[in-house]
Amino acid sequence: MTEFRAPTREMAFTLQQVAGFSEMAKACGYEDASEDVVAAILEEAARFAGSVIAPTNVTGDQTGVRLDSGYKVATPAGFKEAYQQYAESGWASLQFDPEFGGQGLPFSLAIPVQEMWHAANMAWGLCPLLSQGAVEALSENASDVLKEQLLPKMISGQWTGTMNLTEPQSGSDLSNIRTQARPDGNAYRIKGQKIFITWGEHDMAENIIHLVLARLPDAPPGVKGISLFAVPKYLPDASGELGERNDCHAVSLEHKLGIHASPTCVMSYGDNEGAIGYLVGEENRGLACMFTMMNNARLTVGLQGVSISERAYQQARDYTFERTQGTAPGEQGVSPIIKHPDVRRMLMIMKTLTEAARGLAYTGCVAVDYANAENLPDEIKSRYTRRANLLTPLVKGWCTEIAQEVTSLGIQCYGGMGFIEETGAAQHYRDARILPIYEGTNGIQALDLIGRKTIRDKGQAMAELIDDIRPLTGPLQSSSVLTAERQARFDQAVAFLEDATRIVLERGDDDQFTGAVAFDYLMLSSIVTAGWLMLKAATAAANDQADQSAFAANKLATTNFFIDHILPRCSAHLSSMRSGDDAIMALSETDF
Amino acid sequence: MTEFRAPTREMAFTLQQVAGFSEMAKACGYEDASEDVVAAILEEAARFAGSVIAPTNVTGDQTGVRLDSGYKVATPAGFKEAYQQYAESGWASLQFDPEFGGQGLPFSLAIPVQEMWHAANMAWGLCPLLSQGAVEALSENASDVLKEQLLPKMISGQWTGTMNLTEPQSGSDLSNIRTQARPDGNAYRIKGQKIFITWGEHDMAENIIHLVLARLPDAPPGVKGISLFAVPKYLPDASGELGERNDCHAVSLEHKLGIHASPTCVMSYGDNEGAIGYLVGEENRGLACMFTMMNNARLTVGLQGVSISERAYQQARDYTFERTQGTAPGEQGVSPIIKHPDVRRMLMIMKTLTEAARGLAYTGCVAVDYANAENLPDEIKSRYTRRANLLTPLVKGWCTEIAQEVTSLGIQCYGGMGFIEETGAAQHYRDARILPIYEGTNGIQALDLIGRKTIRDKGQAMAELIDDIRPLTGPLQSSSVLTAERQARFDQAVAFLEDATRIVLERGDDDQFTGAVAFDYLMLSSIVTAGWLMLKAATAAANDQADQSAFAANKLATTNFFIDHILPRCSAHLSSMRSGDDAIMALSETDF
Repeated sequence: MTEFRAPTREMAFTLQQVAGFSEMAKACGYEDASEDVVAAILEEAARFAGSVIAPTNVTGDQTGVRLDSGYKVATPAGFKEAYQQYAESGWASLQFDPEFGGQGLPFSLAIPVQEMWHAANMAWGLCPLLSQGAVEALSENASDVLKEQLLPKMISGQWTGTMNLTEPQSGSDLSNIRTQARPDGNAYRIKGQKIFITWGEHDMAENIIHLVLARLPDAPPGVKGISLFAVPKYLPDASGELGERNDCHAVSLEHKLGIHASPTCVMSYGDNEGAIGYLVGEENRGLACMFTMMNNARLTVGLQGVSISERAYQQARDYTFERTQGTAPGEQGVSPIIKHPDVRRMLMIMKTLTEAARGLAYTGCVAVDYANAENLPDEIKSRYTRRANLLTPLVKGWCTEIAQEVTSLGIQCYGGMGFIEETGAAQHYRDARILPIYEGTNGIQALDLIGRKTIRDKGQAMAELIDDIRPLTGPLQSSSVLTAERQARFDQAVAFLEDATRIVLERGDDDQFTGAVAFDYLMLSSIVTAGWLMLKAATAAANDQADQSAFAANKLATTNFFIDHILPRCSAHLSSMRSGDDAIMALSETDF
Repeated sequence: MTEFRAPTREMAFTLQQVAGFSEMAKACGYEDASEDVVAAILEEAARFAGSVIAPTNVTGDQTGVRLDSGYKVATPAGFKEAYQQYAESGWASLQFDPEFGGQGLPFSLAIPVQEMWHAANMAWGLCPLLSQGAVEALSENASDVLKEQLLPKMISGQWTGTMNLTEPQSGSDLSNIRTQARPDGNAYRIKGQKIFITWGEHDMAENIIHLVLARLPDAPPGVKGISLFAVPKYLPDASGELGERNDCHAVSLEHKLGIHASPTCVMSYGDNEGAIGYLVGEENRGLACMFTMMNNARLTVGLQGVSISERAYQQARDYTFERTQGTAPGEQGVSPIIKHPDVRRMLMIMKTLTEAARGLAYTGCVAVDYANAENLPDEIKSRYTRRANLLTPLVKGWCTEIAQEVTSLGIQCYGGMGFIEETGAAQHYRDARILPIYEGTNGIQALDLIGRKTIRDKGQAMAELIDDIRPLTGPLQSSSVLTAERQARFDQAVAFLEDATRIVLERGDDDQFTGAVAFDYLMLSSIVTAGWLMLKAATAAANDQADQSAFAANKLATTNFFIDHILPRCSAHLSSMRSGDDAIMALSETDF
């Protein structure tokens, strides 16, 4: 089986030249995050991902996780050791506040690093992903006392964290959460059941801090009556060390299509006296507190789409070199299948979509760093806040959709062997299938884009994005690296996005219409944005005097492929949007 | 979990009004296959599929198959009983020659019946599917003696059959098959290993007839040196009853992504004295003999795409009625998720693609009946032979591609629950993934369409197809059930297919070009053809005076949906084809 080697050069290039990391680092006061430092961190992370984490992926899938007596969850061989090495090496603390032991590096620098964890082992990578989200929610919202108590050990990786939102009756819609929180002295007693809790119980770290949405006795109904609580598995004692076991337990694990090694727990709170929880943020403002965390988690789930695509691509590529079958055009004798045009087409889709999705994900994350920078003028910060908010559903939605296509093509490149579990292509396909679902289904992302991010915003963020894209369009674009024909096709796609946005704004008060066209709008705007970033990459590579090598030519090749074979999908999405909701809603429910 | 109920009304309508079954039955001398008889057979098959086969599907997936000592394969609970009831009820013999105990009904009547088996349990359905292929190959090619010896028990279902083509080094390309056949008296001794042999060993029937491709000692190299042999598991004795155990065994089973209950065997022939095999057809003409069988198997694999899509659709539909979440546009309080426009969009894609694929599959199979009719003039027969040959890669390719989309949307409709194996949505997704691979990958189908079926044919079959589509296009089409705008969009799609065909024929001598655009051409021609059949269905339903009910309105609704939301994909495929192979082949192999 193919070993995983992180494409560090491609990652560094995308971070710097496409997402504009160094520029951001300078503007936002991250003087330490020089290009050299970034490159060194990526190399070290690549070594760790390839040699320590990646070898646990297949056995993790095969072994899965097990709930033992005493509510203990046993993780697969090597997981705990990999996690402990990860924490000891300081990987958990990269982007966090030095006040609590973090390294104070940009969020967007942690992104390519995390991309490698997820590519190496997506199931394992979910534990750090959720912990990071919990740290963010606490950093933003918790009291100083709570921060002091929890953050240092969470940032060091000694403790992990979880997000507890979903209940059986309450998934995409959190308004009817039923878990109860009753005031009890300085704390609260939590009672209720949460489902789909990723890494809700495990043996990799000594303690787990659960962030739990629950309702106070006198809370108003709906989303305005939800509060957020930190519920530690072991209550920290006065000295901050592990104290009493709290009344919260994983009572069962789900049997899933993929990410077998990630324990998805049913969590039971307060079976006995009630689990002790500490309020995070204000009462009844829990959803807002959780949203900080959810937004970044959405970006990192999009990133997982990039990761699993990269992994599937590498594996398929290697197989197409090894496997011989038939004689390719212009060849003699038997050919490695990579020489067959249809196989090459599949590999090019995989490679191009992965590169484009990476550009989109990194760009979204750099916008988050700008938005959070303390030293920038408000005007700039709010522009970047709008940008980050706009790109978040694109990153989550599109990068996870392309992961379905890429991992499926990964199987297809293998032919019959792809359907056999031992080759490993199927695992990526199974693992990837959760991505369009968790952290808000892609349907929810589409509604977020069209509603909150476009209509409520009166199209401002989208107009600003198109303004940024514009310098690379138009007939006066003499510096284009593209042929005139390809340039014209890209320009047309940008015009499609403008058209689509106009349609959305015009019909913005018709919920049925906007709900029906939202997914196509999400795909269309993502493809145009990703195409822009590919073009930006090709242009930057061509202009880099230090590097007139194959790298620039290759970047142009994937960009041309994107324009020739991916961009045409825009016209299908726009055409579908123009048809609106008529045919979608025509059939009455009883006729299904 | 949703029970499976075959949509018999929809199936009968599609068979009669879209595929033109009755017309064919009259023309080809199947007087007995009246509309009433067909309807009765479908109802009875639906009952059997729903009550006997479908209940084995989930347990079959969970239990899988097991290779026990003595090379025995144990099938899951209920499989053997279902199979025996199937054989005893005469389902195995529908379309076969009365001379050997068949019922002499059309092939295309067996198709909706088989659709139900595969929807009920795709893994189980593969055993009859392969047996049917073996019967076809023997009926066409075997000597009278061999037919007498094998066909009655195979047609009755008492014995099953398999196809043994693939070897580890020889999959899509069969030219380098290594299995050896040595003449030995009236028979041959076979030695070699075959892989991916579906239902190569099992306990559902008393005997298995393996059809095996192998090479004679003096055979020329390549595909012109391959012969076909019938290798019974138990050699029939003089009285035709089971005699000696032959030297062929299943030596291991594959561990697969899906269809867990279908034993995919590594078959070893001749570990001892050599397995006894009987030549089928002429020496060195084995591939041609196998092709009869493969073509029909390709149609039935396409049909499996329809089946699994129908099953996934029914299940997702039922869940979207049950599951409540959020408030849909124009509603009050919590809504069943089917009321949300984005969920409705997904269901409409599932329903529409399934109906369209069914129309395409049935139409391809009716063409096979015309092509095989003995009473028709040669001119008509060869026209239908061209039609069947043209539609075969479309049916296999497109119906299996849409099955990926439909089963994936089936998971998505479930949200988080879709990723949990117990709900069953994931099984359909896993099972479906083999369809674009086996019986010739969809890349091979695309090359077949563009090479053998279009370029070698100088576009005749495609021109004939477009001629048949034409009466439903054009501004003079006053009887159209469509709005003028939709009619214009359909006409444009037909023009796209003509354009694409022109491109293909103009560049027909450039293998690299045609290989690179083949898959897009397959998708484009399938969508246009399926769109035509949807339009045919809507028109027929509207014109049916006996049925001015909701059925016609519903048919128009799915047809409108197809035109609004599926047909636009044609422009993306054509645009991709117009770009040709440039960007596909630009990157050198070492730069992947």
